[in-house]
Amino acid sequence: MSSYTASQICQRVGGRLTGDAEVLIEGVEILGRAQARHVTFIRDARHAAEWAQSSAGAVLVADGVDVQPIPSRAVIHVPEADLAMAIMLDLFALPRPLPKPGVHPSAVVDPSAQLGPGVAIGPHCTVGARVNLGRGVVLHANVVVLDDCVLGEKCELFPGVVVRERCELGCRVVIHSNAVIGADGFGYRASPDGKGVVKIPHIGFVRLGNDVEIGAGTCIDRGKLSPTTIGDGTKIDNLCQIAHNCEIGRMCLIAGQVGIAGSVTVGDGVRMGGKVAIRDNVTIGSGANLAACSAIMGDVPEGKTWGGYPARDAGEAMREIAMLKKLPDLVKMLKHYERERAGAKSRPDAARSTDCSR
Amino acid sequence: MSSYTASQICQRVGGRLTGDAEVLIEGVEILGRAQARHVTFIRDARHAAEWAQSSAGAVLVADGVDVQPIPSRAVIHVPEADLAMAIMLDLFALPRPLPKPGVHPSAVVDPSAQLGPGVAIGPHCTVGARVNLGRGVVLHANVVVLDDCVLGEKCELFPGVVVRERCELGCRVVIHSNAVIGADGFGYRASPDGKGVVKIPHIGFVRLGNDVEIGAGTCIDRGKLSPTTIGDGTKIDNLCQIAHNCEIGRMCLIAGQVGIAGSVTVGDGVRMGGKVAIRDNVTIGSGANLAACSAIMGDVPEGKTWGGYPARDAGEAMREIAMLKKLPDLVKMLKHYERERAGAKSRPDAARSTDCSR
Amino acid sequence: MSSYTASQICQRVGGRLTGDAEVLIEGVEILGRAQARHVTFIRDARHAAEWAQSSAGAVLVADGVDVQPIPSRAVIHVPEADLAMAIMLDLFALPRPLPKPGVHPSAVVDPSAQLGPGVAIGPHCTVGARVNLGRGVVLHANVVVLDDCVLGEKCELFPGVVVRERCELGCRVVIHSNAVIGADGFGYRASPDGKGVVKIPHIGFVRLGNDVEIGAGTCIDRGKLSPTTIGDGTKIDNLCQIAHNCEIGRMCLIAGQVGIAGSVTVGDGVRMGGKVAIRDNVTIGSGANLAACSAIMGDVPEGKTWGGYPARDAGEAMREIAMLKKLPDLVKMLKHYERERAGAKSRPDAARSTDCSR
Repeated sequence: MSSYTASQICQRVGGRLTGDAEVLIEGVEILGRAQARHVTFIRDARHAAEWAQSSAGAVLVADGVDVQPIPSRAVIHVPEADLAMAIMLDLFALPRPLPKPGVHPSAVVDPSAQLGPGVAIGPHCTVGARVNLGRGVVLHANVVVLDDCVLGEKCELFPGVVVRERCELGCRVVIHSNAVIGADGFGYRASPDGKGVVKIPHIGFVRLGNDVEIGAGTCIDRGKLSPTTIGDGTKIDNLCQIAHNCEIGRMCLIAGQVGIAGSVTVGDGVRMGGKVAIRDNVTIGSGANLAACSAIMGDVPEGKTWGGYPARDAGEAMREIAMLKKLPDLVKMLKHYERERAGAKSRPDAARSTDCSR
Repeated sequence: MSSYTASQICQRVGGRLTGDAEVLIEGVEILGRAQARHVTFIRDARHAAEWAQSSAGAVLVADGVDVQPIPSRAVIHVPEADLAMAIMLDLFALPRPLPKPGVHPSAVVDPSAQLGPGVAIGPHCTVGARVNLGRGVVLHANVVVLDDCVLGEKCELFPGVVVRERCELGCRVVIHSNAVIGADGFGYRASPDGKGVVKIPHIGFVRLGNDVEIGAGTCIDRGKLSPTTIGDGTKIDNLCQIAHNCEIGRMCLIAGQVGIAGSVTVGDGVRMGGKVAIRDNVTIGSGANLAACSAIMGDVPEGKTWGGYPARDAGEAMREIAMLKKLPDLVKMLKHYERERAGAKSRPDAARSTDCSR
Repeated sequence: MSSYTASQICQRVGGRLTGDAEVLIEGVEILGRAQARHVTFIRDARHAAEWAQSSAGAVLVADGVDVQPIPSRAVIHVPEADLAMAIMLDLFALPRPLPKPGVHPSAVVDPSAQLGPGVAIGPHCTVGARVNLGRGVVLHANVVVLDDCVLGEKCELFPGVVVRERCELGCRVVIHSNAVIGADGFGYRASPDGKGVVKIPHIGFVRLGNDVEIGAGTCIDRGKLSPTTIGDGTKIDNLCQIAHNCEIGRMCLIAGQVGIAGSVTVGDGVRMGGKVAIRDNVTIGSGANLAACSAIMGDVPEGKTWGGYPARDAGEAMREIAMLKKLPDLVKMLKHYERERAGAKSRPDAARSTDCSR
């Protein structure tokens, strides 16, 4: 385990140190759990008071937040606590267990597969005919890559991932456990006798760009004809469903359990909250934000924030939903009017008022 | 790679050819990507103009759509472009990689399992005691089929599928990667000390009819007592959850991420859009359509289209949701009335009008 | 197969028997499928009439429900039919297929792993360095447990489960097929060039308490720093997503396809219906009930029942949604008023009434 002085850490995060610059730090922890050998972080004034009770050896504090100095401990002021913490996470990240370079004896690799230098294939993997694995590709245990797939340099596929035939992965693609790339799309046509459906073959494939990350359990179906594509740098969380023929742009962030139906086009830099649903054949403009749980039934313009069910401008949707709370009062009020009108009509001296309300 | 003349293709799709009947076609592609050796398709007038810019050797055009003739290229008019394309997909589908017939040496097959002729069991599969695999069953790599399961002829289980003990699959069942058939249902009862819950054993199983298709990552739980059943010809998309004791009818189409709680009965020919949720113990009549993202809280009559949250007649639901947009105006209008009434009451000369509004 | 007399069964469930006490019972079945050798159950008067048509040898009847006596069959009255049935399910549960104790020759177990007495590791499993498996742990086929994990006594991991490095499982934890424990959380920060995102390392892990049960396909991400924790006795259904840093309390019941975003705190004894969504950083009080399909956007107080989108008090939400049905009528009524007002204003003799409505 490597260790750093508070002053070394201060340098890494580009901060400003007060207190003991020589405290030795061996790890990073949250405020409530940090020990003397840990650096911790305080983002806002609300938590500043907890510093005194903490045992942490050092703290990264967002500029503008005051914490009291404590002997033989270090306070490091940083412009942005989140970035500083990310740098700490990088610094203290433990090495990830990796299969040894080469092919594990239990793996089944077709002789026609091409393995670049440094490829590591773990236990019980299956690699099909003519698969091409770029330099440094890692297949953890129990990964299956079927025939004719191409994986770029330094892809890492976690245990249980399945990549069906003819899929293409760029460089540095990360796929988490039990995700499925390239299953058949959900496409059928009426059977000739009209009594059922016949499966439409899906002769397309899936193409994942460079630096794409796919969450655990997520499924990306192969295209019917053309590939289903995910653009460079796009990150998809766990248990998402991306249907056949979708074209997802670059640098999108797609949260957990999102479902995108067939032939949807998504621009670049789109963000989707958890459980978003998008119906088939719509287009989401670049830079759009889709609120969690929204159901997108039509095209979303570039750069807009949409939400609701069915989704519309998120601000409007929120206002309308807020109005719902007033409905019971509205109904009461209207009933009151009705009663007034009814009363006015039924009383003999109300003839004129009847006129006036017509 | 097989190739066909435009005239042969015209015959396959029952179309009417103009232009060059001898163009050689080796594949099918979408309009924007098609080369001279491809047949493509145009469904509607909107895309007809793109034909001139395309390099496709032949095009399937829906009747009623006009495209201009181009020398040494073929135009094939068909009554239904989608059907014609499906026929093309069948024609040009590449062979799917399959494990070799027989048992891969790395597979672990219990000696008491019975394997029909032509069964192919891929690498790292596990087949339990007394399992019965019908003629031509294919288990891709890393499939697990536990004890006493029965699989009918020509079932195909993609890599990573798990079928728990005692499940019964009809003929030609297709199960996509990492789907789980027959996990325990989610059933507990209060523990005797009242402080927790005790697992209820699930002694039932799952029965899948003939020609059922199950999507990647989908989970179908075993019944508590009786089987959870999926009727003949029903197709279920990716990442769906079908809970214990459900009885799903024949020829249903169930889109991605649908969740069906315990003991739900679904008739025949029911269609469900993506992310539909159905609460436990309800009945969905045959031929019903459930709109994407709807939350079904009660029985749905036969043949009806329901939607919304909670779901009701889809037309009503849509009208009500559309009305939501008017709420802010309604509230404004009512406030205006209130002000009028208040004003009328407070002004001395308004006595009569007060009468009229009572 | 073991068999019991009706009188023995009566004793087990603490019931009161009428009819033939010597009927031999070999299993439990639902009313419509039970044969002479089965015990069945009737919960309510609605199904009492079906007893005569049934072939069941014995029936467990909830107190207060009358069924007619039938010769050579037994009727057993019980205070609670559900509990009695659960006891029957326990009694007649078939033995679950288990891998043999010891390590299957095809499994790959790191020499540094420690295996307690009675551990059973099935075919094609992979167990990493320094993993500690407690007494009686069962790993079914194709399970992967990466380095430095600790599993308490009698954990059972079904085929296809993946547990990533450094996770800690209590005793008697059950994880169903293809669930993924400890995948990286979905956390990124803007890249230095501002054009993309950089992955934040997740150096935390997942800690599952004693008696936790995790459904098939469910994903529980590792914490960024601290562990993601699931408290003792909590049960999570299939295809749920629990994001990084969540702290879920004890004895919770979480139904299928629930999604919980990052850093959510859930108290003890919380119940969540299917497809609930919870946004990041909120707190759900102990004993809260979250209705199926609700979208939780903020803290939920202890013991409250919330529902809707966005979620609020469930009763209010239901009333508001019910009001939606009245919206079309409200709008009609208001239009009527408007017409009246307009008419009044435009008619010459309406001058006074115009006054009155101002």
